[in-house]
Amino acid sequence: MIKRLLEYNFPEDLKNMTVEELSLLAYEVREFLLENVSRTGGHLAANLGVVELTIALHKFYESPRDKIIFDVGHQTYVHKILTGRGDKFPTLRKLEGLSGFPKCYESPHDVYETGHAGTSVSAAFGYAKARDLKGENHKVIALVGDGALTCGLSYEGLNMAGGSGTDITVILNDNEMSISGNVGAVSSHLSKLRTSRKYLNLKEKIKRNVVKIPAVGEGLYQGMENIKDSIKYAVIENAALFEALGFQYIGPIDGHNISDLLEAFKASEDIKGPKIIHVLTKKGKGYVNAEQNPDKFHGIPPFEIETGKVINNSKGISYSDLAGSHLKNMADKDERIVAVYAAMLEGTGLEKFKPYHEERCFDVGIAEGGAVTFAAGLAKGGLKPFVAIYSTFLQRSYDMIIMDVALQNLPVVFLIDRAGIVGNDGETHHGVFDLSYLSSIPNMTIMCPRNGNELVDMMDAALTFDSPVAIRYPRGDAYYPKEKEQGMTLEPYEVSFGNDGCVFGVGPMFYTAKKAAERLAGEGIMVTVIDPKTINYNEYSFELSLNFNKVITVEDNVIRGGFGEKLSAFVSNHGLKDMKVLNLGWPSCFIPQGSQSQLYKLHGLDEEGVYERIKDFVKG
Amino acid sequence: MIKRLLEYNFPEDLKNMTVEELSLLAYEVREFLLENVSRTGGHLAANLGVVELTIALHKFYESPRDKIIFDVGHQTYVHKILTGRGDKFPTLRKLEGLSGFPKCYESPHDVYETGHAGTSVSAAFGYAKARDLKGENHKVIALVGDGALTCGLSYEGLNMAGGSGTDITVILNDNEMSISGNVGAVSSHLSKLRTSRKYLNLKEKIKRNVVKIPAVGEGLYQGMENIKDSIKYAVIENAALFEALGFQYIGPIDGHNISDLLEAFKASEDIKGPKIIHVLTKKGKGYVNAEQNPDKFHGIPPFEIETGKVINNSKGISYSDLAGSHLKNMADKDERIVAVYAAMLEGTGLEKFKPYHEERCFDVGIAEGGAVTFAAGLAKGGLKPFVAIYSTFLQRSYDMIIMDVALQNLPVVFLIDRAGIVGNDGETHHGVFDLSYLSSIPNMTIMCPRNGNELVDMMDAALTFDSPVAIRYPRGDAYYPKEKEQGMTLEPYEVSFGNDGCVFGVGPMFYTAKKAAERLAGEGIMVTVIDPKTINYNEYSFELSLNFNKVITVEDNVIRGGFGEKLSAFVSNHGLKDMKVLNLGWPSCFIPQGSQSQLYKLHGLDEEGVYERIKDFVKG
Repeated sequence: MIKRLLEYNFPEDLKNMTVEELSLLAYEVREFLLENVSRTGGHLAANLGVVELTIALHKFYESPRDKIIFDVGHQTYVHKILTGRGDKFPTLRKLEGLSGFPKCYESPHDVYETGHAGTSVSAAFGYAKARDLKGENHKVIALVGDGALTCGLSYEGLNMAGGSGTDITVILNDNEMSISGNVGAVSSHLSKLRTSRKYLNLKEKIKRNVVKIPAVGEGLYQGMENIKDSIKYAVIENAALFEALGFQYIGPIDGHNISDLLEAFKASEDIKGPKIIHVLTKKGKGYVNAEQNPDKFHGIPPFEIETGKVINNSKGISYSDLAGSHLKNMADKDERIVAVYAAMLEGTGLEKFKPYHEERCFDVGIAEGGAVTFAAGLAKGGLKPFVAIYSTFLQRSYDMIIMDVALQNLPVVFLIDRAGIVGNDGETHHGVFDLSYLSSIPNMTIMCPRNGNELVDMMDAALTFDSPVAIRYPRGDAYYPKEKEQGMTLEPYEVSFGNDGCVFGVGPMFYTAKKAAERLAGEGIMVTVIDPKTINYNEYSFELSLNFNKVITVEDNVIRGGFGEKLSAFVSNHGLKDMKVLNLGWPSCFIPQGSQSQLYKLHGLDEEGVYERIKDFVKG
Repeated sequence: MIKRLLEYNFPEDLKNMTVEELSLLAYEVREFLLENVSRTGGHLAANLGVVELTIALHKFYESPRDKIIFDVGHQTYVHKILTGRGDKFPTLRKLEGLSGFPKCYESPHDVYETGHAGTSVSAAFGYAKARDLKGENHKVIALVGDGALTCGLSYEGLNMAGGSGTDITVILNDNEMSISGNVGAVSSHLSKLRTSRKYLNLKEKIKRNVVKIPAVGEGLYQGMENIKDSIKYAVIENAALFEALGFQYIGPIDGHNISDLLEAFKASEDIKGPKIIHVLTKKGKGYVNAEQNPDKFHGIPPFEIETGKVINNSKGISYSDLAGSHLKNMADKDERIVAVYAAMLEGTGLEKFKPYHEERCFDVGIAEGGAVTFAAGLAKGGLKPFVAIYSTFLQRSYDMIIMDVALQNLPVVFLIDRAGIVGNDGETHHGVFDLSYLSSIPNMTIMCPRNGNELVDMMDAALTFDSPVAIRYPRGDAYYPKEKEQGMTLEPYEVSFGNDGCVFGVGPMFYTAKKAAERLAGEGIMVTVIDPKTINYNEYSFELSLNFNKVITVEDNVIRGGFGEKLSAFVSNHGLKDMKVLNLGWPSCFIPQGSQSQLYKLHGLDEEGVYERIKDFVKG
């Protein structure tokens, strides 16, 4: 009865399949994932790890009546295949294509949108409380990875749900790693649980004893009563953390054994209140390259299936790697320098730093808030912490940046990676708010390097500050201009074609503006291009605008609250006659996925768009 | 040897005092606190609870060499008395006076500034790592309340410190309540620990056995070896949570017994690595009114010592109470309405709601991030959550507001209390960033009621939205205008004196602007006053500015990123000739404590200041 995967009517067809058929299906799903993700790129390893688990979830629960919430959400590919979206996989993560994360507009089976870690338990608790108040009786399930257990928000969810007695099922998908391996005490606690295989043995023993009883034996086993009790109590003495958090614990369960998973789900039905099912999976399961190198296959560009080799046309060096390498060089000379990151070693480029300064490189787990407060403590202790976090995840630290770092005016340097549009990860990952949320914070200097040289120089400059500095740079390869064009590190850099107007290009947007200006110069429209370099440092770059009647700003940030709005305010506060300002940047909506270049183009922020808009504005 | 409290040379004098003398000192400190705080107002109950604990800390540890970090920080009054600041208490929480929170500029004994809960463990871990890297050997102690254990940031700190093996001491000051009583599973876990008095009994038993051994007995007891082991293991089976988090547990200890506290600190010295000392205290200890009503005496205005009666001249109703009462009325009619708050029942006015809708009123603990994600889940489940959180604490939820609420465009209503300057709590509590951090979020409508009527109307209006709404209102009594002046709820409201200029007054700042305009009209300067009412709703209020050459904005928010900057940008984007904008609001620095009216005056945001500045601007 093997069908091609796309011919099934999912999730309905799952209900009639036997465990053996489901196991074969798992094989098909893995093949499908590998075939598709090797072409499109995507979060492969996590999805290979949850094939059986997701099949078992959809076999057992009645989605979308039962609410299955996927923490982080990059592990929903199997869920998408099993809810009728297999045919969309060639468009995965592409412009207008299938999202790599749960999206309510895609399917009624996506009941909650995620992207940042740790939200699922709190959200599930909200769903559960709404259900109880409305007198409904569906199940609410949160699927959360062990990595997300390092996240304070997960703990807040567990504490509130656990204290409530409300019926909610948390499935802990324990693959023994966050993105870059796990850290922290809870991770060690889970290790102890993993090695406690008493449950499986005990269950087997009980099963054997029970089925021996003639006539009623099999029925009794079907009833599962004894099994359930033994599941509940088998490892209870080790599940201290979850018990303390008010959850009853079942586990550990082999996450690649569909039969065991279904048994555990069934057993959990008779436990009323908050319960946690601890499931062990292997990241990258079934694809040897990913099993051996799950970090590399966490989020991966297109690759060759046979070799696992990434099909990569980039010949440059990314801003991330540059930041990591240069921080290593800085730390060689200055022993006060330490690095802090939140589970993203490769992503932030700190893998270039860590091997040389292991003792001075701190992974705090997926705990961006804690990372910043920890860094504040390091700074108070006399060190110079560099905190490398993606722009979108640093949103988690907003209050700690204000209250721990800025209020105490501490020399913490934020290396804000993935600032601006990131591309295929879409809405939840674009780093388009940081200029807005950072620029209203007192004592904070924001630096926006326009190229690789400038990133390096700005990191050096930041080290000399006695106050907080944020350096924001985009995803992707750093541009290295051939000619020397640097100027003084923190002073605005100007390329003048004339006085018809001026264009402020923030960060690498400087080059977009410059190319547009070059084209315009060919047509006799002479504008000056300015890299302001810093925000909140001084108003010198703003003052440069006062020499022009037409001023344009271009930034890889939402317009609201960004650089351009601040410059516009400066202009209208000065009330100069005949001046007009055009702000280019991201509009007030969430920008969906697409390649970076597609999204720039679509929103008029590529060279062509900026050229057209400057031309219209200066002429109009 | 009883001295008047201010005649001591603290903390040095503590070192030579006996336990009996320290106990007498505790009595003096309590008397001093009561005398002073009854006159100035302040956080009384928490400080009465930590008198012996703070004395023991300064007796045992070598501050400031040893770093003592106070979580939240409102319980540092005793610490301030014991570090030479007793004479400053008449100025407590006043303009240019002694802060109610730790401030590094006040004393070298204040080693880390706090104000928001949950930072102490992460910060202490930073200090400890810095110490280790620099080869220093002082102690690092974090004093954290049980309320702050509901906070995800505390958990992130415990997880990282616990996993590290680094030497750090966490003192859990367990007074069995957050601000409004405790919630969540961890709170129940602590209850179990509290009732496990095995330690104290066991210790006594061992002591008795040991000292019985002739000659060496007393010395052996002094050596404490056996005691330490028994402390360590006495209740270990109950301390599951902390063990799972990698902390060795000592406790519970009677927090009002200086001798027991000193013994526990001494015992903890021989435990290397992360350790937690669980100390039981009584909030309000020693003052019967506060013991009986710790919530009322958490933060209290001046009061009569004998009766505990607050000396209160307010005859009005606060915005908070109004919000709570009206939400109760709304919920009477609409069963979809639920309320969520983060440990602040009285503060947010939800005490007016809770008794009538107990089942629909959720306290999540000091977990603002979790509160917002939970509310998103409630909204997805079909309910209409109203989330009441102070402006400054809502900063903790910034990412969740974007990713859980705004991205899914959910009908969650934020009741943002204490928006704008709050007065005597100072830098850490002013709510002056919310207009900036909320206004760059897509899908978010911000409403700023200018008076009590408008708050009520806006809450009704918010209920009709299918998207997120934030209603921000200040600390203090709501103004009720006598005449009907409402206008349409969400349309700008205009009072025209003429065309010399226009003044936008955001929220209650409308009245400051209006009074200034009335004075100006008397002098022949005729300006129109506009209440914009909303931000991000539409640009209609912005358009009203285009009829004037001189435009002024007044808001109770930092200028950067606020309403005024957005209006200024609108103006310069339209490039109208001879227009000039003046933005009034808080400058880019942290505003220290003082009464609200003093701070408005000091920064030219009172009626006089606004009048002067409008006059200069319009005439100049």
